[in-house]
Amino acid sequence: MKATIERATLLKSLGHVQSVVERRNTIPILSNVLIEAREDGSIRLMATDLDLQVDESVPANVAQPGATTVSAHTLFDIVRKLPEGSQVEIAAAEGKMQVLAGRSRFNLSTLPRDDFPVIAEGDLPTRFELPAATLRQIIEKTRFAISSEETRYYLMGIFFHIVDDQLRAAATDGHRLARITVARPDGADGMPDVIVPRKAVAELYRLLEELEGTVEISLSPTKIRFGLGSAILTSKLIDGTFPDYNRVIPTANDKLLKLDPKSFSAGVDRVSTIASEKTRAVKISLDRDKVTLSVTSPENGIATEELPADYGSDGLEIGFNARYLLDILGEIDGDTVEVHLADAAAPTLLRENDKSNALYVLMPMRV
Amino acid sequence: MKATIERATLLKSLGHVQSVVERRNTIPILSNVLIEAREDGSIRLMATDLDLQVDESVPANVAQPGATTVSAHTLFDIVRKLPEGSQVEIAAAEGKMQVLAGRSRFNLSTLPRDDFPVIAEGDLPTRFELPAATLRQIIEKTRFAISSEETRYYLMGIFFHIVDDQLRAAATDGHRLARITVARPDGADGMPDVIVPRKAVAELYRLLEELEGTVEISLSPTKIRFGLGSAILTSKLIDGTFPDYNRVIPTANDKLLKLDPKSFSAGVDRVSTIASEKTRAVKISLDRDKVTLSVTSPENGIATEELPADYGSDGLEIGFNARYLLDILGEIDGDTVEVHLADAAAPTLLRENDKSNALYVLMPMRV
Repeated sequence: MKATIERATLLKSLGHVQSVVERRNTIPILSNVLIEAREDGSIRLMATDLDLQVDESVPANVAQPGATTVSAHTLFDIVRKLPEGSQVEIAAAEGKMQVLAGRSRFNLSTLPRDDFPVIAEGDLPTRFELPAATLRQIIEKTRFAISSEETRYYLMGIFFHIVDDQLRAAATDGHRLARITVARPDGADGMPDVIVPRKAVAELYRLLEELEGTVEISLSPTKIRFGLGSAILTSKLIDGTFPDYNRVIPTANDKLLKLDPKSFSAGVDRVSTIASEKTRAVKISLDRDKVTLSVTSPENGIATEELPADYGSDGLEIGFNARYLLDILGEIDGDTVEVHLADAAAPTLLRENDKSNALYVLMPMRV
Repeated sequence: MKATIERATLLKSLGHVQSVVERRNTIPILSNVLIEAREDGSIRLMATDLDLQVDESVPANVAQPGATTVSAHTLFDIVRKLPEGSQVEIAAAEGKMQVLAGRSRFNLSTLPRDDFPVIAEGDLPTRFELPAATLRQIIEKTRFAISSEETRYYLMGIFFHIVDDQLRAAATDGHRLARITVARPDGADGMPDVIVPRKAVAELYRLLEELEGTVEISLSPTKIRFGLGSAILTSKLIDGTFPDYNRVIPTANDKLLKLDPKSFSAGVDRVSTIASEKTRAVKISLDRDKVTLSVTSPENGIATEELPADYGSDGLEIGFNARYLLDILGEIDGDTVEVHLADAAAPTLLRENDKSNALYVLMPMRV
């Protein structure tokens, strides 16, 4: 293998693949990136953690095709430190890979490319496209609610499923739920329900940040593949059943509070300053057209803040985890958030308005 | 106590004092900041960790003088989150302190001001002034070499002493030494040797960042006081004897290497990418007008880089800790660094040139 590639191109692509590689690996080759120089004048870079792989092809000047694997983080750090504008020459021979740029020369240990594990995609019968911006929005509006509790592994990802002519994405950790709905893309009917794991969501989001245009999605009940321009992300899906979350979305909450999400958020943030780290409970007291936020902490004291609001129902006191409430308010884009309440013990529904494609459910806590 | 103060003024001043307060304290009042509203129309804020205290006065509208203490980090976080431009009203009564701003109201737990420990300065007979810029430079050029080894507590600070008409500041951890010399300020003759502890150095540097003009320094053999505009930093000094570091500054190193510190630094940074975390050793091979940097790592491979240099003596190979070398090169401001070498086992002297007031000594390591 022998090829020359621009530092900037190599760095960008290594940046994409290296974050898949875990810092500590019991299997040595999982620390490595596969580098394959191909006759068509491209270099393919690939990294995996056995559940997730990212595979990217970039243009290069290939003198001699071939492939090897070297430490992903080491190579990334080397290329990052090379002078801007350098041409990087890579060459593999006799169990080593040489990296040459300017007056620097690195002779890196390698492991055989044939030992590099590749996720067998198998047949991916469902195929459809989504605009990159839509997929970004789906992730932004739901990822904060993904559970991190290993015991409920089936909640540790975003659940995608088709209902009639809609593609729905949902995430919940049992305390809060986020759901977003988009029009069903062509080709997605008959799609199996899938749960995309948290790490794949994070890597996908990173790759989407720079992407315009559309994403090609192919999936089976066990694997999903995202075609993102020059990169392909393939992930195993979570092998579990996502709970029927529709049961927790309230439909008959009869008390409606409307207020500015930014003042609401700033107020909750302020009063929760004195909340104990453990509960982070904020109490919301509702009176006619007035909201009072309050936190009582045995150690620190009491904090209260009044906010103007639009509220016409009976008075109510309800408590929420301030962190969870702030997460949701941070995803409301407009000037108003609707908070649909029933009583102090019932799930509360939040959304921008009845036209918004995202909705949030928050469980109250006793205060 | 009752007073009104601008949020921006209070925030800035709390920012200065709160960083002295440790996150965890076994003595509850050490978590608190002393707030004293005075008849002269100022609020005094003071924080301490028993070894170090920062005391700052800021203008305020004082309706009723008085004093109390509240959690420093909590108050800082509250004020940080208040809307920009707010007027903050503080009032203490019945074991609580009220903070009012806009529609927010906080009722904070307090501890009695009489329990707040104040460092007794005692007599500080030596008094002199230094320009803030000079004191900043002294800290910048030496602090990186301060030891963090508790067993050699007398190295855990910057050593200040007078030699003839010079004020010298030095720090060393036994592997590297940094020394800077400035003209002896008026009033500093007869100054006792003092070691200013690491944390006091860090807080002092933070306070200096925004300061123009001069710093008033007063000290005794056990305490030091820095007058920094509206703030006063008082610190205990390290009760120990700084070693006679002059013995390790080589005077007869006969091999002189001159090169650009920026290329040198970039090259060392690059080749050390593959160095093992433990040793971080970089080998420097000197030939006539050429430097070769190299690192050999059993796991990762070999890295080399050649640099043009001005060198006329016999060939030499010497090893350094890359991290330590980079720290020193980062403090060389000009286009050239002079490296004075003797042999592979002898302390090496680095400096910009024979006119620079800062010099560095680096112990080699076997490679």
